[in-house]
Amino acid sequence: MNMTRASHRGSVDGNGQVRRVDQRRSVPIGVRRRGQTTATKLSRPRRIVDLRSEAARMIELICELFPLCRSITGDGLRQSLFRLGETIPLETHEVASGTQVFDWTIPKEWNIKDGYIKDPKGRRVVDFRANNLHVVNYSGPVNRRMSLGQLRPHLHSLPEHPDWIPYRTTYYADSWGFCLSHRQLESLADAEYEVVIDSSLRDGALTYGECVLPGRVEDEFLISTHVCHPSMCNDNLSGIAVATALARILALNSHRYTYRFLFVPGTIGPIAWLSRNQGKVSRIKHGLVLACVGDRGCVNYKRSRRLTADIDRAVEHVLQTRGAPFKVRDFSPYGYDERQFCSPGFNLPVGSFRRTPHGEYPEYHTSADDLNFVSPSHLADSLGTLLEVIDLLEGDVKFLNLSPMGEPQLGRRGLLPAASEREQMALLWMLNLSDGSSSILDIAERSGLSFDALRCATELLVKCELLKNCAKVDS
Amino acid sequence: MNMTRASHRGSVDGNGQVRRVDQRRSVPIGVRRRGQTTATKLSRPRRIVDLRSEAARMIELICELFPLCRSITGDGLRQSLFRLGETIPLETHEVASGTQVFDWTIPKEWNIKDGYIKDPKGRRVVDFRANNLHVVNYSGPVNRRMSLGQLRPHLHSLPEHPDWIPYRTTYYADSWGFCLSHRQLESLADAEYEVVIDSSLRDGALTYGECVLPGRVEDEFLISTHVCHPSMCNDNLSGIAVATALARILALNSHRYTYRFLFVPGTIGPIAWLSRNQGKVSRIKHGLVLACVGDRGCVNYKRSRRLTADIDRAVEHVLQTRGAPFKVRDFSPYGYDERQFCSPGFNLPVGSFRRTPHGEYPEYHTSADDLNFVSPSHLADSLGTLLEVIDLLEGDVKFLNLSPMGEPQLGRRGLLPAASEREQMALLWMLNLSDGSSSILDIAERSGLSFDALRCATELLVKCELLKNCAKVDS
Amino acid sequence: MNMTRASHRGSVDGNGQVRRVDQRRSVPIGVRRRGQTTATKLSRPRRIVDLRSEAARMIELICELFPLCRSITGDGLRQSLFRLGETIPLETHEVASGTQVFDWTIPKEWNIKDGYIKDPKGRRVVDFRANNLHVVNYSGPVNRRMSLGQLRPHLHSLPEHPDWIPYRTTYYADSWGFCLSHRQLESLADAEYEVVIDSSLRDGALTYGECVLPGRVEDEFLISTHVCHPSMCNDNLSGIAVATALARILALNSHRYTYRFLFVPGTIGPIAWLSRNQGKVSRIKHGLVLACVGDRGCVNYKRSRRLTADIDRAVEHVLQTRGAPFKVRDFSPYGYDERQFCSPGFNLPVGSFRRTPHGEYPEYHTSADDLNFVSPSHLADSLGTLLEVIDLLEGDVKFLNLSPMGEPQLGRRGLLPAASEREQMALLWMLNLSDGSSSILDIAERSGLSFDALRCATELLVKCELLKNCAKVDS
Repeated sequence: MNMTRASHRGSVDGNGQVRRVDQRRSVPIGVRRRGQTTATKLSRPRRIVDLRSEAARMIELICELFPLCRSITGDGLRQSLFRLGETIPLETHEVASGTQVFDWTIPKEWNIKDGYIKDPKGRRVVDFRANNLHVVNYSGPVNRRMSLGQLRPHLHSLPEHPDWIPYRTTYYADSWGFCLSHRQLESLADAEYEVVIDSSLRDGALTYGECVLPGRVEDEFLISTHVCHPSMCNDNLSGIAVATALARILALNSHRYTYRFLFVPGTIGPIAWLSRNQGKVSRIKHGLVLACVGDRGCVNYKRSRRLTADIDRAVEHVLQTRGAPFKVRDFSPYGYDERQFCSPGFNLPVGSFRRTPHGEYPEYHTSADDLNFVSPSHLADSLGTLLEVIDLLEGDVKFLNLSPMGEPQLGRRGLLPAASEREQMALLWMLNLSDGSSSILDIAERSGLSFDALRCATELLVKCELLKNCAKVDS
Repeated sequence: MNMTRASHRGSVDGNGQVRRVDQRRSVPIGVRRRGQTTATKLSRPRRIVDLRSEAARMIELICELFPLCRSITGDGLRQSLFRLGETIPLETHEVASGTQVFDWTIPKEWNIKDGYIKDPKGRRVVDFRANNLHVVNYSGPVNRRMSLGQLRPHLHSLPEHPDWIPYRTTYYADSWGFCLSHRQLESLADAEYEVVIDSSLRDGALTYGECVLPGRVEDEFLISTHVCHPSMCNDNLSGIAVATALARILALNSHRYTYRFLFVPGTIGPIAWLSRNQGKVSRIKHGLVLACVGDRGCVNYKRSRRLTADIDRAVEHVLQTRGAPFKVRDFSPYGYDERQFCSPGFNLPVGSFRRTPHGEYPEYHTSADDLNFVSPSHLADSLGTLLEVIDLLEGDVKFLNLSPMGEPQLGRRGLLPAASEREQMALLWMLNLSDGSSSILDIAERSGLSFDALRCATELLVKCELLKNCAKVDS
Repeated sequence: MNMTRASHRGSVDGNGQVRRVDQRRSVPIGVRRRGQTTATKLSRPRRIVDLRSEAARMIELICELFPLCRSITGDGLRQSLFRLGETIPLETHEVASGTQVFDWTIPKEWNIKDGYIKDPKGRRVVDFRANNLHVVNYSGPVNRRMSLGQLRPHLHSLPEHPDWIPYRTTYYADSWGFCLSHRQLESLADAEYEVVIDSSLRDGALTYGECVLPGRVEDEFLISTHVCHPSMCNDNLSGIAVATALARILALNSHRYTYRFLFVPGTIGPIAWLSRNQGKVSRIKHGLVLACVGDRGCVNYKRSRRLTADIDRAVEHVLQTRGAPFKVRDFSPYGYDERQFCSPGFNLPVGSFRRTPHGEYPEYHTSADDLNFVSPSHLADSLGTLLEVIDLLEGDVKFLNLSPMGEPQLGRRGLLPAASEREQMALLWMLNLSDGSSSILDIAERSGLSFDALRCATELLVKCELLKNCAKVDS
């Protein structure tokens, strides 16, 4: 029923992608060369990720993946995952058609070779080869002659955006159709057309990719993104590109959490994964679903069903300290694959990281969500924000003040006067609240200081033996 | 000491009062013909109450009761309760004078035949027969000649409203007096007057009415209204009329809760009831005191002492979803009979449902609180709102998602696409939060959707066996 | 190691300081002559403190203490404490140099006789005898000739306030220096100067004062103020004066709590006290650190680390009911000696009572913080506010409604009609919420009524045996 295919492990570019650059344009991230893992148990910023070259890599990946006709099953999906496996250590899994996964059944595998509408003169007036959005995704095979009147119910366009081709699917329903611009539609003469969709729906498998980066502990940080959309950039090549960049960067470094990246077809993908991995689910301590992370809107984070999970608080703290505009919304059960991770039987601490949410920009699910719609700097901003979130949660531990009776004498340890008032306050807050009940993030929230300022203070205080890391697992 | 008098069971008009009408002007209510009680355990809207004819009935009842001279004891009170017993199954109780009820003693019974002030020419310049507010309620008997100077301390008027007669009482104090318009008072010549109050204060009983409508469970919903005010409409014939309408409508239908309606003289009435029914008090799960529910102001709900009891949340949700202006205030220990139900020894979940609160309109406790002061449409609005509150609490149960691992596939069950985005969201929210810990009202508060929209969703989901009612008592 | 010196018990002026005056200008305080302690267990306002004469006494004390050159150790500190011992029953304690107190070591004792900079003509251009701020506090002995260039690094001035002398210290660091006005500094010619500091740093002791006023219970109310600053009025002769006034007034009266006043050098003082009194710390139920309480700014209270301790709620309630502008800030670990009491090993309910916080007025830590900078009426306002806070916490007990089933009949007890609506509401709120779980302050916060109005109601209700004080210790 389940068969694991080849594990594609791409080669990793060993130099260049992680280098020290102008601090104003870069983002610190807990990155460490393999030989340095003993230096400290905390994953502090050690290297600087060059977000500009990361952005270039992401755009390159998006360009490569754009032409493939992905769906929730089939070879377009497999080819896309194969490409990711060249960059990150990706294992692909296939789940056979007909497999029961909770309330769902893995559908037949869909593949398509061609599709067109030919006018009486033999011209392809709608042509899958020109844009794979032209064929409704998961359309069954068709080959017949039809009048425009007969064909009309199978044609989809957007009158309000006459030059855009809509994106439509017919998953879990036996149907077919074509999408075309409204201008194309209006130009169709009342004639007989040759209508061909050279597709197949046969028993096969659903494919998904999984990239697990073992950490120092078994606790997991889940990052999931859907991979089923064809030829659209924000939804969701942007999520694929950012998740791939995160995995590539994290693979180069030691980290506390085990990171699990899922590249899955929407809805049925996470349901299949959850169904096959129920024993692992309790390890997930933090999680994010990435979607629509390349448009020019601000970050718009949707909280997990728990509303105040650590991931929710961490993302919000990072967004606040970064200074750029952002939005945070409460959980709602509509959206992308957080719907599955946050279903009541799992209720995982998984938030939804996105820029403009799906359905809230006119280009959504149309041919206008193209390479121009996503922006390198916004992809980089999403990546940088996520790296900070990861860095925060990697370092969010509780400390114990070893001199809790009155203030310790900081002056004789050279800690006072501090370089700045902010540094002094960070030292004092860490000492005052490190009674074993508060993590750095707790203290950041109460003090109004940034996590980074407090983390710097902990390093000085640990060095002076005034603080001790409470974490047993890390010590 | 306690003697139960005749149980007056009025005949109920078997047709007409519950009929299907124009939905825009009517309010759904959980009403079911007796033969239909097996259809569903939830008391969903089944019939439509015609609020316009209900309003007419209420006005008719108010007109009938208006002339009676009620007090906290006596025949005016008995006659009023007798009239209610013609409409609803009312049991009247009498508690003998001298009975100790907690900190209080049932007072002597007061009855009055006549009362007047005659001028030297024998003209009744103040006459109880013209308006029973003219005699201070509970005045002892008087029969003597007095100068205006001697009489003056016994006369009450309202200089700021020179045409209105004030309403005064002398409960629990041995005194007497007359109330008159300030214009009347000023026209009194300095002469000798014949002053007569033909009243009696003798051992007798305090009377109250109780209407119990058994439900499927012993848990009770208490609705209490005071019945001691003479010849004033908003305070409190409006409460009597609305409570009577509610009881009549509920008597025609199956319901989950047992409804207990109390028609009691203010303060001493609920104290007497509580004193004699201490064993039943723990059954009360929700309660409302009705007073001043017919004026043209908006609904102004006062929360129970618990502040967040289900009744408080239910009333607030209904007010929010109805869309009309409304106010909600926190509990305070001043008001009507909620003071007794919310005393610390009971602390019942009883809120105070009213329109303009007592003392906050100038007509309060004067002859200007007459038939013109209450409005049929506002009486109907109070009734309609209360019916919705009852309907909500009748249906506010917890469900369990039977397919909690990931989302169930709604499409193959014909639930998607839903008729509207609101319906789709209602389905998703009910599924997502039905983990056994949240009732529909909880989910309504978190989701921002209306209780009704969610309840409709539960019906569809129960039918598809995706939800199961958690309630043992109802299943 | 520890030696307790003489216990200086000053005589107390037996008449005049506590007298009845015009209520508009005075503040009630729980003061009772010794012979009256049996009258009631509640410390209700009995006498009126004349805040104007208290202000005059405080100013007088400030004037006497101003010239003394205090430091964290030494004879200036001892002389200051001796003066306080003439007014209140003060015990002075000495802790020997070298004693370990938690993370700190009691430093050598510092004393100074003279200090100056003489120009080539022998004129004292900077002279300790003119202002003891001129020598950096804790400077070691110096006696040498130096060029202006050599001397310059040892000179401190305030260019932005050219006429003010800054206040500098060199505690816990072996150094020396002079402070002078920037105008003085600029007038120094480039010449050779005779530089003399006739000070000593020798093994001795750290001195602090403690005034304990036993109450009816062992539970303590701690009031601490620092005493180490020389010749500055707001920081912190104001705190010394207000604390002394409080102690003198409380010593004349019976009270529930045991009051402990600490007059301690900053930081090292409370650390030494905490270190030597660890067994007593758990008795501290409420506490305040007084500093900067004489300037013309409004009261700016800083909450304890617990944020919602009784002391925090009491101060906030008093500030709200007094009506004058005020500020309340959350705890932060920077400030005065609350840093020690609120360190994580103690976490005592100690707030910081101040007017303009240290560092937030330009005169802070300069010669401009002089006798003109503090105001008698603001000292009196601080004292009056603190007396109200003490009065509130002395009287903040829980009551039990002895007639909790329904409302008791207030009319027959002469409690209704009350003199005002506020009095009536106070009666009703006290009865309604006195279920044994709420103190008067709890009820004040919920009802919006003032503590005083509610306390008056409790007296009437206790007299009628409707309320009973829950406190075992007081009953």
